[in-house]
Amino acid sequence: RRREWMSGPWVLIFGFAFIILIGTVLLKLPWSAAPGKTITWSEALFTSTSATTVTGLVVRNTAQDFSFFGQLVILFLLQVGGVGFISFSVLLFRLIGRRITLQTRFIVQQSLGTSRVSGALDLALYVLGVTLSLEAVGALLLYLRWRSHLPEGEALWYAIFHAISSYCNAGFDLFSGTEAGVLFGFGTDWFTLLVMGVLILLGGFGITVMYDLWSYRFDRTLGLNTRLTLILALVLTVTGTAIVMIDPNLHRNLFPDLSWGKRFAVGLFTVVSARTAGLTILPLDQLSEGSQLIIMLWMFIGGAPASMAGGVSTSTVAVLLVAVLATARGHSAAVSFQRTLPNETIAKAVAIMTVSTLLVTVVTLILSLRHEGDIFTVGFEVVSAFANAGYSLDFTSKLDAVGRYLIAFTMFWGRLGPLTIVVALAQSEQPTLIRYPEEPVILG
Amino acid sequence: RRREWMSGPWVLIFGFAFIILIGTVLLKLPWSAAPGKTITWSEALFTSTSATTVTGLVVRNTAQDFSFFGQLVILFLLQVGGVGFISFSVLLFRLIGRRITLQTRFIVQQSLGTSRVSGALDLALYVLGVTLSLEAVGALLLYLRWRSHLPEGEALWYAIFHAISSYCNAGFDLFSGTEAGVLFGFGTDWFTLLVMGVLILLGGFGITVMYDLWSYRFDRTLGLNTRLTLILALVLTVTGTAIVMIDPNLHRNLFPDLSWGKRFAVGLFTVVSARTAGLTILPLDQLSEGSQLIIMLWMFIGGAPASMAGGVSTSTVAVLLVAVLATARGHSAAVSFQRTLPNETIAKAVAIMTVSTLLVTVVTLILSLRHEGDIFTVGFEVVSAFANAGYSLDFTSKLDAVGRYLIAFTMFWGRLGPLTIVVALAQSEQPTLIRYPEEPVILG
Ligand SMILES: [K+]
Ligand SMILES: [K+]
Repeated sequence: RRREWMSGPWVLIFGFAFIILIGTVLLKLPWSAAPGKTITWSEALFTSTSATTVTGLVVRNTAQDFSFFGQLVILFLLQVGGVGFISFSVLLFRLIGRRITLQTRFIVQQSLGTSRVSGALDLALYVLGVTLSLEAVGALLLYLRWRSHLPEGEALWYAIFHAISSYCNAGFDLFSGTEAGVLFGFGTDWFTLLVMGVLILLGGFGITVMYDLWSYRFDRTLGLNTRLTLILALVLTVTGTAIVMIDPNLHRNLFPDLSWGKRFAVGLFTVVSARTAGLTILPLDQLSEGSQLIIMLWMFIGGAPASMAGGVSTSTVAVLLVAVLATARGHSAAVSFQRTLPNETIAKAVAIMTVSTLLVTVVTLILSLRHEGDIFTVGFEVVSAFANAGYSLDFTSKLDAVGRYLIAFTMFWGRLGPLTIVVALAQSEQPTLIRYPEEPVILG
Repeated sequence: RRREWMSGPWVLIFGFAFIILIGTVLLKLPWSAAPGKTITWSEALFTSTSATTVTGLVVRNTAQDFSFFGQLVILFLLQVGGVGFISFSVLLFRLIGRRITLQTRFIVQQSLGTSRVSGALDLALYVLGVTLSLEAVGALLLYLRWRSHLPEGEALWYAIFHAISSYCNAGFDLFSGTEAGVLFGFGTDWFTLLVMGVLILLGGFGITVMYDLWSYRFDRTLGLNTRLTLILALVLTVTGTAIVMIDPNLHRNLFPDLSWGKRFAVGLFTVVSARTAGLTILPLDQLSEGSQLIIMLWMFIGGAPASMAGGVSTSTVAVLLVAVLATARGHSAAVSFQRTLPNETIAKAVAIMTVSTLLVTVVTLILSLRHEGDIFTVGFEVVSAFANAGYSLDFTSKLDAVGRYLIAFTMFWGRLGPLTIVVALAQSEQPTLIRYPEEPVILG
């Protein structure tokens, strides 16, 4: 049994690294670049990492610096990265956890439907099927909306690209830096924003929550995991939108001529996209720092685990909040929806939060020592990379080569999950069998 | 038994509020202001809160805007606030914790010396005795050093004021804004910095650690609490000093003419003072943002619990790190120095860290929405207030009245301890006797 999970993290690490390397080579091919452009190795590696980890931070413009082939490679990488990661994490590591108990195994089977899922390949095909179906519906809806204002072929290609990018929470787009305007002129179109927002939310829920929601029709129950994910998604979306909506910069400088309804649609989409799609429809650097701080925190929190979303995950935050409330009330058990959270779950949430905070802090510190620039902007970019969010205050474009490798590493670490690398490094330790007496420590 | 701890937090809250109100009235007296100056009510309240919570953030210059009487009031407030808090927190709330177990009661008795400490008054007198003795020694040493360059009377008064301010980690000083220079010209004097640094460290260790160190001569053992406190103090001091020492701004702009030895002394003192004395001997706003970030994090961590220091406390950080390491290694028990940390201790550490982070974030967000200014500077100031540190990037002077009340509230909350107000508010809840089944949650 010990060998079983020992190999888990390393398989994940090497598997991901392998996909990124293939992507780097493909993107470095001469015909991946747009005519007259050249992609350097460090740019190819950065782009491949950003696509495979569904982050969306870019050092080269996707629409203008890459050829159609290059864009296809990027689309392929984010699809494989997204689907492959979910399948793998559900099956091997994340969901099942370090110690495979009968209980968690039961949950996996229950939430994915035992009869259909029996092995790794079956699971990957199942996840891929759900993914492709949802993306196809999204692409069709976007195509029908966009064909009126765009040439047929372009409308179809853009619809497919942005549906996949939305569902995979990837944040790559084909309009930034071009003259086509935000979303090809549909940047304030409620239908376009609704379709893409729903795709982002579903991708951020992950396969287990979607299955639980789907099967609610039959069993009329939602798991604790699903409840916490939905509640946190709701709370974060509502409070985040409220704070962005009171930002005077949004009304005064950005959209003075827009109706309140459209401002609301843009604000709502921006907050939904923050966790962790990163599809940018307004210039974030022109928002006030208060809004930027909220967006940064929401990126850090991210979406559900084992989904397209990154971040420490809504579940981690929910578990911590439930545990803290129990401590404050003097209860010995952390109870939520009449279910007790196991100590092991709480310990894992603490570990994820601590390791993530440390990683983001250390990387921010190193980058701010190496580069000129406001430390808040640096931190924003690092959180965006860690959470595979892809929102940017334009710091990424100023990175030197070492900075690019560091941000690429942060994206990689973030996508593997905050604990994967730590666990992989710590696992060689022999478990202790000695029991030591308890001694409490005085706390602040 | 339930009544016993129920009253704890409220007694602490009202006791502190009462001292702050008395201080406010005293500082508002006409003869507390320097000739020709007037102190407003909001300035008096802010100064009284800052002194009683041993923070050291100021909206009026201590040396120039207050009379000798006003400075005496400030000195009295920080002495009472420091000593009173330690006594109270050791006795009633912090140390003993929410649930009074025989084990923790034993630790309290052991660490303070059972025979000498039997009641609240005895304890307060004991703490006061240790405090006054150490301060007297410090004041004497500073006086002997300073009398050569200062008039006798001034040297004595300055020595007393700064010895008390150092030991209480208060951060108030009588040279800022005057023409006397940093520490009256002793800003780079190793003897002065050594005396004050040791006073700061001892004050930040707290009475239990000092007692444990003192009794090491007899029993040859150090408690887990003492070991973790010392190790973290060492690690934070060394790494912090190293990072500040590589800051190019320190060498290029601030001290181009200073010897490396003196630069090291100033850098070391700045880092020691960051947790959480706040005695400022170099212009912090001229350091690079990397150094500022480290100082901000060190403030947030602070010193030992039940000491003059604030912050989430080194113990909380140590407990979290030990717990995280155990989780990463797959161990079920968090073991440190052959002692197991109780789940209750870990839960409390998580609660402290979470509540503190939330408080700092929310206050920063509100202030940044109300005031102009870089959000990092705002966050630095809020952390400084929360941790009762008193370092400032000059944002405090720009606060409007509401901002002052908010920062004063943050100092108050921070000094009471991150959990005190939460516990006071949550305690009316009836403890649940129902046991719910466990259900794990998928984490990121
Ligand atoms: K993304
Ligand atoms: K202080």
